[in-house]
Amino acid sequence: YFSEATLGSPCLINGLPIVRNISELPQDSYGIPGLTHMTVAGSVLHGMKEVEIWLQTFAPGAATPIHRHSCEEVFVVQKGSGTLYLAETHESVPGKPVEFPISANSTFHIPINDAHQVKNTGHEDLQVLVIISRPPIKIFTYDDWFMPHTAARLKFPFYWDEQCFQESQKDEL
Amino acid sequence: YFSEATLGSPCLINGLPIVRNISELPQDSYGIPGLTHMTVAGSVLHGMKEVEIWLQTFAPGAATPIHRHSCEEVFVVQKGSGTLYLAETHESVPGKPVEFPISANSTFHIPINDAHQVKNTGHEDLQVLVIISRPPIKIFTYDDWFMPHTAARLKFPFYWDEQCFQESQKDEL
Ligand SMILES: [Zn+2]
Ligand SMILES: [Zn+2]
Repeated sequence: YFSEATLGSPCLINGLPIVRNISELPQDSYGIPGLTHMTVAGSVLHGMKEVEIWLQTFAPGAATPIHRHSCEEVFVVQKGSGTLYLAETHESVPGKPVEFPISANSTFHIPINDAHQVKNTGHEDLQVLVIISRPPIKIFTYDDWFMPHTAARLKFPFYWDEQCFQESQKDEL
Repeated sequence: YFSEATLGSPCLINGLPIVRNISELPQDSYGIPGLTHMTVAGSVLHGMKEVEIWLQTFAPGAATPIHRHSCEEVFVVQKGSGTLYLAETHESVPGKPVEFPISANSTFHIPINDAHQVKNTGHEDLQVLVIISRPPIKIFTYDDWFMPHTAARLKFPFYWDEQCFQESQKDEL
């Protein structure tokens, strides 16, 4: 299932084995302290068009940015515990979020465009499987919960898509 | 988060708690021997529009039907082992499938419209998390690998969507 060309590139689109071992997938922190990210099935890496799946591990204290997106997102907590912060208001700023405790076997989905953050507030690693629709993801990030929605910054492509997104763009020239 | 109306119905669309415990979700075999199905986040049950997630457990010997669909589908094996059968030809019948061993930590996605079957060929329960796009799922089923594609039967709504799909249709009258 491998050609030499795909073996030589971290940005596989073709020549991917049908069945892959998650524990052998590349992982990286992308410079985000306490994060380990693996793309289990991805748009930029694996040619997915409608869904994308990540396995992410957050060390104690580590968190996603405060962010929003217009795609659907579902979390399935595999290990550990933490907190989901969710700002359900649609005023000019996210505002003080509601806090939901999460732990192994929790599942939750993020209402479209609601600002949210997932944080490991426990003492062990928090591991989550994350499913998003319409990849690759486009994220608007906030410095804090009182930053206006209009000031949130678009981060696209997101960290784990950056290298291969650029390569796939180049391929199309 | 519950109203009396939603507590009284197995077909929750509104009033769902944001964070749910997977081990407390309703589960059913839907008459399929050896199957335990849970809809973790679903279109008909939870109002998802772009992705849907199931947790399915197959007893030894149990299997999905041989089937195809035009949505994307990704499996993440949580426990046990089994076999993915995948017919990659696009002739008039699926034909003899390629067999891929799968086990805990395996992930695979099903190429669009390829006929496939997942079977527990191991000795313990096989548990898989299944992600599909564009729910609710529309499945074409085959009696065997040599049944013509044109003879495959549409099963829609699928078993776990049947009761609530009908209720949600009635609600719209
Ligand atoms: Zn998110
Ligand atoms: Zn399928």
